Amino acid sequence: MKPSFNLSLYLVLDPDLCGGEEGIVATALAAVAGGVTIVQLRAPKWKKRQWVSAAFALKAALDPLNIPLIINDHIDVALLADAAGVHVGQQDIAPEMARQLIGPNKILGLSTSNAGQMAAVPLDIVDYIGVGPVFATGTKLDASPVIGLEEFANLMQAKTIPAVAIGGIGLGRVAALRAAGADGVAVVSAVCGQADPQQAAQALRLEVADV
Amino acid sequence: MKPSFNLSLYLVLDPDLCGGEEGIVATALAAVAGGVTIVQLRAPKWKKRQWVSAAFALKAALDPLNIPLIINDHIDVALLADAAGVHVGQQDIAPEMARQLIGPNKILGLSTSNAGQMAAVPLDIVDYIGVGPVFATGTKLDASPVIGLEEFANLMQAKTIPAVAIGGIGLGRVAALRAAGADGVAVVSAVCGQADPQQAAQALRLEVADV
Repeated sequence: MKPSFNLSLYLVLDPDLCGGEEGIVATALAAVAGGVTIVQLRAPKWKKRQWVSAAFALKAALDPLNIPLIINDHIDVALLADAAGVHVGQQDIAPEMARQLIGPNKILGLSTSNAGQMAAVPLDIVDYIGVGPVFATGTKLDASPVIGLEEFANLMQAKTIPAVAIGGIGLGRVAALRAAGADGVAVVSAVCGQADPQQAAQALRLEVADV
Repeated sequence: MKPSFNLSLYLVLDPDLCGGEEGIVATALAAVAGGVTIVQLRAPKWKKRQWVSAAFALKAALDPLNIPLIINDHIDVALLADAAGVHVGQQDIAPEMARQLIGPNKILGLSTSNAGQMAAVPLDIVDYIGVGPVFATGTKLDASPVIGLEEFANLMQAKTIPAVAIGGIGLGRVAALRAAGADGVAVVSAVCGQADPQQAAQALRLEVADV
């Protein structure tokens, strides 16, 4: 059975921002204690041996807390670690093929950045979409053009699948995104880059609940 | 059943050197016509969607010729394309885990660059090793230190599994490597970078047979 998941406060772990392989487990645990509901590992600079090691460590840490671990891009790593799901971008393995590899019982997320990409999402295959970058971001070097809050709200009017806002999201921006229709917000540096990730997540959590 | 394979003239396709995704199939076919016996796709700069597309195209081209297609690093891509095998490096997914994903009927290769790594190869899991770089190479940016022909010959004395020499190999260097005990030679720019890949492969083939 596919694990249930709550997209409301979605942490994307960037090892560059949170102390490398050593730092990510501590960051993830602190963030979950602060209210993060789902965790993705995204480490485009890593070789696969490190990916596997980190994915096993995160899985062991998050499973007892019932927090799903999502693996970005590398489905082979997700399969080995028995992660809860995978997240692919428009240039990664296509959703239909990703589903073929992971089977029916894993979560599948897909990045989108405009109405055309959202309309093309295979709804019987993908479980949620990321929509962004809503704001300018420094943590994803190959990001698409910034959408902005107004256009994001337009996109949310047309959505037919749970959607997570991503890109440049931090304190003070969450409530407006939720009000615009986002099922959740994905944060990277707003948690990974902070001195106290638990407190940072708690503050974001309050804004999530504030709608 | 695991496909039979002949390591004697092993082409590593580098899209940067042979015209990108469009060029690799033509290069591979020409090289096979010239005597290449096995083909690996290695494209560390590519996103996975392009990997999958190229792997399908290569598989369709090589299957009728009974030439095995080996996928470097990305086991998810190999699974989707039903490639003949995968090749992993020391920093990629570990051989035991790679075998777990691909099952018993696929070819598994592992890169090694010294006696310690060769002694650590799990012989019941890995089908062949790459040994190199024997000579200086410009086509692999994260290559290990150069081994040299003398040390390569020492390593071949201790080998317990089929071994392919790799790194800076071109015309005039093949016979010595074969004489030193290499089961095959892997070439990149000696074929991919040439105006006439078929002729380039033929010339290498003559040297392979010259031992």
